[in-house]
Amino acid sequence: MTADTSVTVDGDRFRDRFDAFNEIGATEAGGVNRPALSDANKQARDRLVEWFREAGLDVRVDAMGNIFGRREGRDPDAATVLFGSHVDSQYNGGRYDGVVGVLGALEVVEALNDAGVETDRPIEIVAWSNEEGVRFQPDMLGSGVYAAEFDLEYAYGREDDEGRTFGEELERIGYRGDAPCEPGDLHCYFELHVEQGPFLEREGVPVAAVEGVYGFAWLNVTFEGQANHAGPTPMTMRRDAFVGAADVTKAVRELTATEGTDLVGTVGSVDVWPNAINVIPERVEFTVDLRSYDNATVAAAVERVRNEVAWAAEREGLDHEVEEIMRIDADPFDEGCIETVVEAAEDAGCEYTRLVSGAGHDANYLNTVTPTSMIFVPSVDGVSHRESEFTEWDDVVAGTEVLLRAVRKRAEG
Amino acid sequence: MTADTSVTVDGDRFRDRFDAFNEIGATEAGGVNRPALSDANKQARDRLVEWFREAGLDVRVDAMGNIFGRREGRDPDAATVLFGSHVDSQYNGGRYDGVVGVLGALEVVEALNDAGVETDRPIEIVAWSNEEGVRFQPDMLGSGVYAAEFDLEYAYGREDDEGRTFGEELERIGYRGDAPCEPGDLHCYFELHVEQGPFLEREGVPVAAVEGVYGFAWLNVTFEGQANHAGPTPMTMRRDAFVGAADVTKAVRELTATEGTDLVGTVGSVDVWPNAINVIPERVEFTVDLRSYDNATVAAAVERVRNEVAWAAEREGLDHEVEEIMRIDADPFDEGCIETVVEAAEDAGCEYTRLVSGAGHDANYLNTVTPTSMIFVPSVDGVSHRESEFTEWDDVVAGTEVLLRAVRKRAEG
Repeated sequence: MTADTSVTVDGDRFRDRFDAFNEIGATEAGGVNRPALSDANKQARDRLVEWFREAGLDVRVDAMGNIFGRREGRDPDAATVLFGSHVDSQYNGGRYDGVVGVLGALEVVEALNDAGVETDRPIEIVAWSNEEGVRFQPDMLGSGVYAAEFDLEYAYGREDDEGRTFGEELERIGYRGDAPCEPGDLHCYFELHVEQGPFLEREGVPVAAVEGVYGFAWLNVTFEGQANHAGPTPMTMRRDAFVGAADVTKAVRELTATEGTDLVGTVGSVDVWPNAINVIPERVEFTVDLRSYDNATVAAAVERVRNEVAWAAEREGLDHEVEEIMRIDADPFDEGCIETVVEAAEDAGCEYTRLVSGAGHDANYLNTVTPTSMIFVPSVDGVSHRESEFTEWDDVVAGTEVLLRAVRKRAEG
Repeated sequence: MTADTSVTVDGDRFRDRFDAFNEIGATEAGGVNRPALSDANKQARDRLVEWFREAGLDVRVDAMGNIFGRREGRDPDAATVLFGSHVDSQYNGGRYDGVVGVLGALEVVEALNDAGVETDRPIEIVAWSNEEGVRFQPDMLGSGVYAAEFDLEYAYGREDDEGRTFGEELERIGYRGDAPCEPGDLHCYFELHVEQGPFLEREGVPVAAVEGVYGFAWLNVTFEGQANHAGPTPMTMRRDAFVGAADVTKAVRELTATEGTDLVGTVGSVDVWPNAINVIPERVEFTVDLRSYDNATVAAAVERVRNEVAWAAEREGLDHEVEEIMRIDADPFDEGCIETVVEAAEDAGCEYTRLVSGAGHDANYLNTVTPTSMIFVPSVDGVSHRESEFTEWDDVVAGTEVLLRAVRKRAEG
C-alpha cells in the first residue's frame, strides 16, 4: 500500500480538457448531442484516442467499439485494473454524464505520468459504447457484450429509428475494432459517475462510495374498455380505460409511501386510444417502473400493482393485462472494492458517504466479471439526461482524487 | 290537420334501400367507411341523387355540397318543411348514424307519393356535408355554413391530414353545386337520428322526442413538472406531471357523481412527455369534456376542475395551465316542434319518451335559423361511431312513421 500523498490530479488541466471535449456536439442550451455512433460521437471518440495516445497509452478498440487505453505495469503477467465510463450522450443531454468518468480516468493517468509513478499491475481506461441506449436499445450494450450478457450478432443487429443497424453504423464511423470484445485478465473495475439523484447535494457531501444498484421490475399494463361518445353515455354505464390507468397511478404513488421501504414507483409512458377529446378512452397502455435495493420489496410491489390493476378493472368493467417485461435483481458491488473507495476517500481527506444507486450503469455488467464499485459525485438538483445537468467542478475534482487513490491502492498493492 | 292514418311507410322497401346503400364503402366487419368527400362518399351521393330523382324530387346541390330534394306543395309561396340528416361516416363507422335520417326522409316522400298526398307547403329532404368532422374539422360544417356559423371560404380552406382542402375535394367529386348555401324561406326542420346513447334501449322505448342538446365545455389542461430518472429520484422530491393528471381524472369522475345533476365528464385525450418507461413525466397535456343540459352546472364544473387542477399542482409542485377551448350553451329545441313530434308519435300509436341529447347534431345549427326538433331511435348498447353500431329495424321504421306524421302535420296544416 502506497502512502504517497503528493500525487494529485490537476483540476485546471482536467477542466480545460472537459470544456474542449464538450465543444463537440455542443447545444445552444449548454448541453451536448452525441448519441451513440453519431458523427459527433465519432468526433468525440477521435479526440479521446488522440488524447489517450498523447498520454502514452496503448489504444485498443474492440469489436463493439469500446475504446481502451492501456498503461503497462511492472508485472506484465498481473491482472488489469480497469476504470472508465462512456462518452455517448442522450439526445440533447448533459455534459457530465459519462464524460466525467472517462476524462477523470485520463486525468488519473496524467497525474501518474506527471509524478512518474509506475504501478505493479497494468491499468486500463475505457470508454464503453452505447451506454445511454437512446438510439440503439438496449442500453449498456458495449459493456453488456463485453460481459457476455448479449452476443455480438445481436448487438450488431440492433436498429435505430431509421432502420440503420448498430453494426453498419459502427463500421461507418470507423470504430469496429479488431480486438475481441471480452474481459481479459481483470483485477477489478472502478467507475466515477455523476449521481443522477439528489442525495449527495442534499447531504452536502462531495463523494459517495457506491454499494450497489437497485433492482427493478418493469410492467406493461393494458386496460380495454369501450369507446363511446362522451356526451350521451351516462357515467354509470362507462367502461373508461383511462380512469383505470388513473386509479393505478394513484395506487403506485400510495404504495411507495409505505413506511420502512426504499421503494420508488413511476408511471412513465402512457398511450391512450382513440385519444379524442369527446370519446371515452377504449384502450390505455402504460408502464410501471418499480425499484428497491431489496428484491423482496420489488416482488411484493409487483404483486400489489397486479392486484390494483385487477381491482381497477373490476370497478370500471375493463379487460386487463399485466406483462412483466423486465426484472433485474438488486446488484450489490464487491465489498473489497467498496472498502477501497472508502479508504481512498479517507486518504484524500474527502468527506464521503455510502450510497445505493437507483440507476443502472456499465458497472453492473462489469460486476458480473470482476470485483467492482463506483464513485459518485453530486448532481445539482438531482438532474441528469438534460442540458441543464450540472456538477460543481470542485466535486468532480474530489471524485477524481478518490478514483486516483482507489486505482493506486489496487494497482500498486 | 290531416287525420289520414292510412299513409304509412313501407319498412321492407326502406330496408332494401338501406342495405343496398350500405354496400357502398362497406367494411368486412359490417360497417361503412365513407368519410366526407371520399370516393365512397361520392358514390353514396350519386346513389342518393338518383333515388331523389326517381322519387320525383327536384334535386339541388349547394355551394357546400349539401344535397336537397324538393317536393312542391299546393302553395308555391309557403315556407318549406325541411328534414334529413347526413350520409358521411366516421372512418370505419356504423351503417345507421345519419343514413337512417336521410333514407328515412326519402321513405317519407315515397309514402306520400304512393298515397297521392299533396301537401300545402313544399317539403325538402336534405343530406348535409361533413357532419362527422373526422376528415375535415370542425364537424357539422355543411349545416354550419348554411346557418352562417362559418363562412364559405373558411369551410373551403379546411384541410385533411394530407393537406387536401375541403374546397378542392368537393370540386374533385363533382359536388360543388351552384345553389347558394343559405336557408331559403323555412317553416321548420326535423331530423331522425340514432340516439348514440343507451337511454331508449334501457327504457325499452322505440322513439324519443328530442327536447334539446346538452351544453358543454372543453378544457385543455397542461401540467409541467420535472423529468428525472425513475430510479435515483426519491418520491418526496418528485414533480410528476402524470400524477397530477391522474388526480384530476379521479376528481372529474367524483365530480360527476354529485347527486342531483346530469353532469358527465370525460378525460379523453392524454399526451405525456417524454413518455419513457424510466423517466418521470415532465409534461402532460390532457382534455376535459364536461356536459349538462344546465349551463350553470357546466359553469360550476369548469370552476371545480380549475380548482382541482390548482390543488393537484400544489400537491405535486407542478406548473399548470387550463385553457377553455370551447363552451357551447345547452340548446333547447322549439317547443312547437317538440310538441309536433309528440303528437306524431301518439298518432302513430308509438310508445315514446322525451329526451335530451348528449351529442351535437346538424339540428343544432338548424335550430338557429328555423324551429327545430329531432326524433331519436334506440342504439343497441348505446354504441355509435363503430362498425358494431346497430338499431333494431322495427325501431327504425317506428321512428320513420313518426317523422312522416310530423312532416305531414307541419306541411299540411
